[in-house]
Amino acid sequence: MDIQVKGDLMEKLVSLCKRRGFVFQSSEIYGGFNGFWDYGPYGIALKKVVEQLWWNEMVEKRNNVVGLDSSIICHPKVWKASGHVDRFADIMCDCKDCKTRHRVDQMPDPSVCTNCGSKNLTEPREFNLMMKTYVGPVFDEDHKAYLRAESCQPIFLDFNLIRIATRQQLPFGIAQVGKAFRNEITPRMFTFRSREFTQMEMEFFCSEEDAMQWYEFWRMERYNFYKNCLGFADEEIQFAPHDKLAHYAKAAVDVEYKFPFGWGELEGIHHRSQWDLSRHQEFSDEDMTYLDQATGKRFTPTVVETSVGLDRMILAILCHAYREDKAPTQKEGMDEDIRVVLGFPARIAPVQVAVLPLSKKLNEKAAELQDKLRHFYRTEFDVTGNIGKRYRRQDEIGTPYCVTVDFDTENDNAVTVRERDTMEQERVSIDNLKAYLDNKIYGW
Amino acid sequence: MDIQVKGDLMEKLVSLCKRRGFVFQSSEIYGGFNGFWDYGPYGIALKKVVEQLWWNEMVEKRNNVVGLDSSIICHPKVWKASGHVDRFADIMCDCKDCKTRHRVDQMPDPSVCTNCGSKNLTEPREFNLMMKTYVGPVFDEDHKAYLRAESCQPIFLDFNLIRIATRQQLPFGIAQVGKAFRNEITPRMFTFRSREFTQMEMEFFCSEEDAMQWYEFWRMERYNFYKNCLGFADEEIQFAPHDKLAHYAKAAVDVEYKFPFGWGELEGIHHRSQWDLSRHQEFSDEDMTYLDQATGKRFTPTVVETSVGLDRMILAILCHAYREDKAPTQKEGMDEDIRVVLGFPARIAPVQVAVLPLSKKLNEKAAELQDKLRHFYRTEFDVTGNIGKRYRRQDEIGTPYCVTVDFDTENDNAVTVRERDTMEQERVSIDNLKAYLDNKIYGW
Repeated sequence: MDIQVKGDLMEKLVSLCKRRGFVFQSSEIYGGFNGFWDYGPYGIALKKVVEQLWWNEMVEKRNNVVGLDSSIICHPKVWKASGHVDRFADIMCDCKDCKTRHRVDQMPDPSVCTNCGSKNLTEPREFNLMMKTYVGPVFDEDHKAYLRAESCQPIFLDFNLIRIATRQQLPFGIAQVGKAFRNEITPRMFTFRSREFTQMEMEFFCSEEDAMQWYEFWRMERYNFYKNCLGFADEEIQFAPHDKLAHYAKAAVDVEYKFPFGWGELEGIHHRSQWDLSRHQEFSDEDMTYLDQATGKRFTPTVVETSVGLDRMILAILCHAYREDKAPTQKEGMDEDIRVVLGFPARIAPVQVAVLPLSKKLNEKAAELQDKLRHFYRTEFDVTGNIGKRYRRQDEIGTPYCVTVDFDTENDNAVTVRERDTMEQERVSIDNLKAYLDNKIYGW
Repeated sequence: MDIQVKGDLMEKLVSLCKRRGFVFQSSEIYGGFNGFWDYGPYGIALKKVVEQLWWNEMVEKRNNVVGLDSSIICHPKVWKASGHVDRFADIMCDCKDCKTRHRVDQMPDPSVCTNCGSKNLTEPREFNLMMKTYVGPVFDEDHKAYLRAESCQPIFLDFNLIRIATRQQLPFGIAQVGKAFRNEITPRMFTFRSREFTQMEMEFFCSEEDAMQWYEFWRMERYNFYKNCLGFADEEIQFAPHDKLAHYAKAAVDVEYKFPFGWGELEGIHHRSQWDLSRHQEFSDEDMTYLDQATGKRFTPTVVETSVGLDRMILAILCHAYREDKAPTQKEGMDEDIRVVLGFPARIAPVQVAVLPLSKKLNEKAAELQDKLRHFYRTEFDVTGNIGKRYRRQDEIGTPYCVTVDFDTENDNAVTVRERDTMEQERVSIDNLKAYLDNKIYGW
């Protein structure tokens, strides 16, 4: 039975993520680097699964959405056209006394330093969030370029090229997964607000008349993703319409997750009107219009976007999965103690099946079994420590099924399968093991 | 029967890659951006498959190699420790007459401008290849950071953290796939030398005594990858030992592919000695040694590296796949014409099975079939143009099997399967279709 988590859940999660190799600070041996994170072995496994799940749902199962993988650095004019050079900025002020810098919109009282209480502040001014670099042999304005601040812009640039190459007609979408960079002044909340992150975006091109209908369609598709693919409960997610729309947007809503630190944006669904294509047409002099074969009308497509942060999705999955319960223990003088579990759905768990030989003498037999299982599941071979400790370790990394090879296995050609959540154990014949696990993991 | 490709193969390939949406210049509508490339729908599909193939072979099928996904920007000290800040430079000179810049090592005669023949050149000087940016609110030396120039350095930083989290003992490896950036002065040969590219690297940590043995092991493992997983022929790949070793290296060899423009490096296998870990220990003051439980000895691990460029691997796969032959045509006055084929192995083809309804009336029936097939294969639904044209288009994107739904399908519950290479057609019952395709594609 789950118990109330005591103490700060985020602190516990951050600690678990480092200890078990999910996510930890970049450059830890150099004291870390604020706003940058590394995903360790279990973290990258989880990230790959979730990214592929999104890709399946958004691209591979649809004939009207195709993929793109554009460069992170693109032509600097792109960011002039998109408005990022002029407008992608936070309003900041400096405290002249304690020398700290603050986002004005995050100050409870914008006339008082949040750090030291001084009123000796500079005038608020704009601070552009794009990271710049130089491409080519000279470091001057002519060679300045930007790391993309969002992954969607290259989709607009390549719209016509991809449309023609794939012979798509409207309505259709282009999807991309990739890194984006923002020079956030106050990266915070673990991976929630970082300076380097992965976006999964889809831009859907349609006629202006149909756009609100598609906006509704994608809003529900994305909501269902959280419910059906990730197993989030109704009370964990909510829609939050934007108070203030971007000047070009016709409609916008966030999907929010109830993080331990409060509701936070996971994904945005946006009706971007014709803003992006018309701006790129203006700045590039390339024709970005579309000729509708059926009606003979030529128009600039309207765009509906779904945009999610993969790192935030992973963080939500971790928060959703973390729980503690009481479980039997072999520790001296105790019947039970607190067990930490990452209760991932079996489909997305970084390790789906751990193979545990009960003794070193059984390693070879167990390794043979793992080699069969790894064609079908993400597996791990775990030989160190007594079996109780190994179960607890697998619970912490969220492995739904532990398969133990023991001395009876030679005789009955069977193994013990231990289920993470119920901790129940069942003897399963090796011949039936795949069917058993397929049923448990995929419901087949 | 294959015919000799006439004209410049690279030109044809570059043109095909753009026309069919495999790979094209970044920011094309802005005139392109030299050294940066975008992968379109078929390109990203191929890239994903090949990356996953490498990941399977290097990580998922082994218990002694684990994964990492580190940030692209990490602590600037990393690149001081690695030697990149001081040493990662090309020697360049400028022509004072025509104002071009040249890599001295690429000039046939370093005293004469390759462009205009002038001898009026500047003294050769160092030009650092790392791309820099600024992290934080101030753009000064203290806030300077670099886009990683190679994906391996973060592996060294995280070595101990990952070792402890995964309870690995030596020998074991850490693998990573990710972007790297180099400010190349002369990006060229399509995607072969670009400024932004994806590396797939594995660093294997072992004792100094065992290192040469592991070097040999990984050299052969990687060679076999090209032979067995990608189907490259003996005469297409070769080992090229380095003429000059990096000052810290004990042994190094390249796997080269015979590109249309000559032999080019695909992958390097390097014995890096204890250089990386000992440098990071020196610069970070963190203990990077390892205690061998069995012998009780403490030592700095030796590293054997396998490092491959994913973009180059894709380029080699495309070159290997491209061919022309003569095939029957329905064009007026001709019996046959030249057919362009990307002869990908069926396992890695971006589209494995195309579903073609012979008439619009059959769209629904064909879509149903595609929905079944897409659970098992990468599929495409192709409805435009006559069937001959559609076959040719699928040949150009390298689809090994076209499944045509025709008016007989209703009666005999069968479809026509057309094979790309032989162009032979076979009637296959829908009930047997999966078994038929599994056998053809995977040899099951």
